[in-house]
Amino acid sequence: MKRRQFVAGAAGAVAAVGLAAAALPALAQGKRELRMVTTWPRDFPGLGTAAQRLADSITAMSGDRLTVKVFAAGELVPPFESFDAVSGGAAEMYHAIEHYWQDRSRAFNFFAAVPFGLTASEMAAWIYEGGGQALWDELAAGFNVKPFQVGNTGVQMGGWFKRQINGLADFKGLKMRMPGLGGEVVQRIGAVTVSLPGAKIFPSLHSGAIDASEWGGPWNDLELGLYKVAKYYYYPGFHEPGTALSAGVNLKLWRSLGADDQALIAHAMAAENARATAEYNARNAAALETLRRKHKVDLRRFPDDVLKAAGAAAGEVIGGIGAGGDPLARRIYESFRGFRKPALAWSHHGDQSFTNARLMPFKY
Amino acid sequence: MKRRQFVAGAAGAVAAVGLAAAALPALAQGKRELRMVTTWPRDFPGLGTAAQRLADSITAMSGDRLTVKVFAAGELVPPFESFDAVSGGAAEMYHAIEHYWQDRSRAFNFFAAVPFGLTASEMAAWIYEGGGQALWDELAAGFNVKPFQVGNTGVQMGGWFKRQINGLADFKGLKMRMPGLGGEVVQRIGAVTVSLPGAKIFPSLHSGAIDASEWGGPWNDLELGLYKVAKYYYYPGFHEPGTALSAGVNLKLWRSLGADDQALIAHAMAAENARATAEYNARNAAALETLRRKHKVDLRRFPDDVLKAAGAAAGEVIGGIGAGGDPLARRIYESFRGFRKPALAWSHHGDQSFTNARLMPFKY
Repeated sequence: MKRRQFVAGAAGAVAAVGLAAAALPALAQGKRELRMVTTWPRDFPGLGTAAQRLADSITAMSGDRLTVKVFAAGELVPPFESFDAVSGGAAEMYHAIEHYWQDRSRAFNFFAAVPFGLTASEMAAWIYEGGGQALWDELAAGFNVKPFQVGNTGVQMGGWFKRQINGLADFKGLKMRMPGLGGEVVQRIGAVTVSLPGAKIFPSLHSGAIDASEWGGPWNDLELGLYKVAKYYYYPGFHEPGTALSAGVNLKLWRSLGADDQALIAHAMAAENARATAEYNARNAAALETLRRKHKVDLRRFPDDVLKAAGAAAGEVIGGIGAGGDPLARRIYESFRGFRKPALAWSHHGDQSFTNARLMPFKY
Repeated sequence: MKRRQFVAGAAGAVAAVGLAAAALPALAQGKRELRMVTTWPRDFPGLGTAAQRLADSITAMSGDRLTVKVFAAGELVPPFESFDAVSGGAAEMYHAIEHYWQDRSRAFNFFAAVPFGLTASEMAAWIYEGGGQALWDELAAGFNVKPFQVGNTGVQMGGWFKRQINGLADFKGLKMRMPGLGGEVVQRIGAVTVSLPGAKIFPSLHSGAIDASEWGGPWNDLELGLYKVAKYYYYPGFHEPGTALSAGVNLKLWRSLGADDQALIAHAMAAENARATAEYNARNAAALETLRRKHKVDLRRFPDDVLKAAGAAAGEVIGGIGAGGDPLARRIYESFRGFRKPALAWSHHGDQSFTNARLMPFKY
């Protein structure tokens, strides 16, 4: 899912005056108000709600000394100006997904989701323990931002298809809504990608203007009701195997904070990472059950030749970012790829082997 | 792994006077000192280090207003008296794994690890979003403890074997070190389990006193050097598919805290959950690489008939806890089992399907 187009409507309503009115955080009786801009509609499930929970956490932990006020997409600045707003000091924090900033550097994709890359658990391991955070800090510092991972949607689903995909040939000329790096991957295996806001997916599938569309995982997909207009629900979502949510703090502000407030905010971020990830995991499981049992959705796995071709195409797309001439992007690519290799082997002998064994027929 | 026996040596050195000397937290200039007892030797990798990190987090976030002092196993109380110490107020917090308290209630196992149960991600989802925390709160409140999840070792390995396991028949009479619920499972499929402290595993495998032993995941296993005395390293570790680390706070103390301090501590716990889990994931991946490349360990998957028989045996063992006549244990069992079913299906279509696809042969 890319929410860029989904929230475009909200964005349009914003007057540029929002930025002009911005000022430094209020300071009264030692209290500080921090404005958090987001790329989400207010209380959008899993995203807007997570931003609000993070804000409330910081406020509660500090006994209201740091009060974080959430602005939904378009309320203070247009959603995709959130990054510039925090960078420039018109807001103190943002809650978003880093691939929205790929116009500034394609390397931001590595801190969001990479086709055939890392799962949610592996992403957190790379960020916290594999050198990812230091590289992300370096990348974002170039824009006066201190970044944090604050959740993960988990692996997404491959999308909704009006026709069966029985082999790679069925991707030839397929009109599919798939933005970002995933879109680049499916283009390389024959699809014609279409850019559509979330709200237009349903009518476009219904009318036959498109043949297929990805959106998110079961939780977000169920809400959009796509099962009513496309019969086949494919998996796995190789294009976004674990999409990280992120929060950024104005770096100058961050550096001005005391060690205690830095620790408080950093731990609020990491706590939210655990909680939002767990929430997606639990809600996705429940939603998949509903889609299967209640809505009788036809779940299908992509054929092997599709997965192999998409995997190779993904390698080319990601390699292209590393080879694009930006030395920092190259180091990020190399760190990511270096971490991925042993992570694959550990997964194979660990979670993956266990979950495969757990599906064997036995009474439990 | 059960660390009960591993730290027995440290425990022995403790004088009972430790408890008598215990007093209420120091109060000076609004500052409060909290004593954290642990079941680990000081700075034991991944466990003692995590306890210290958690303590340091709370101290730093509060600007030293709440100062948490860590006591390694045996320094204030013997390791397995940590729970009673916190329950009775001789210490304010513990850092441990809940299966150590299974003598108080077998239901504590559900908040540690369950054979053929939930992975690390699923455990966090059940605790935070599936009703697990409320049940755990209820169970621990009976002992005046407020519990938190503070990490996960991830799935463990199946253990080190001196002989190949080519089928279920090879478990017949196998002398294996495997404590706890996992031990009950392998007993049901023919093994003779042996109780041994961690430090005795190496010599017992070397002398042939035992044929096999589990310990932990690759990170903890590598440190013990078991690859030198047992040739075959089996997976997956079905006995502990995601072992949660836990911290408990004296409930009376917890209730006396202000909303800000409760929020601060709760978020420190959740942040540590994200960080310790990520650390195990990253370190396990690196250690497995070392075991394979440097030490040429022979990695083998348990045969299907072993996994099926162990899965069925696990179902019986866990079901026995639910049917043991304790109404709370029954509710916990039913919540866990009810969460596990859709979690299995989501894993199958999500992470598991993705990681299986990711292993296909393609250039990346």
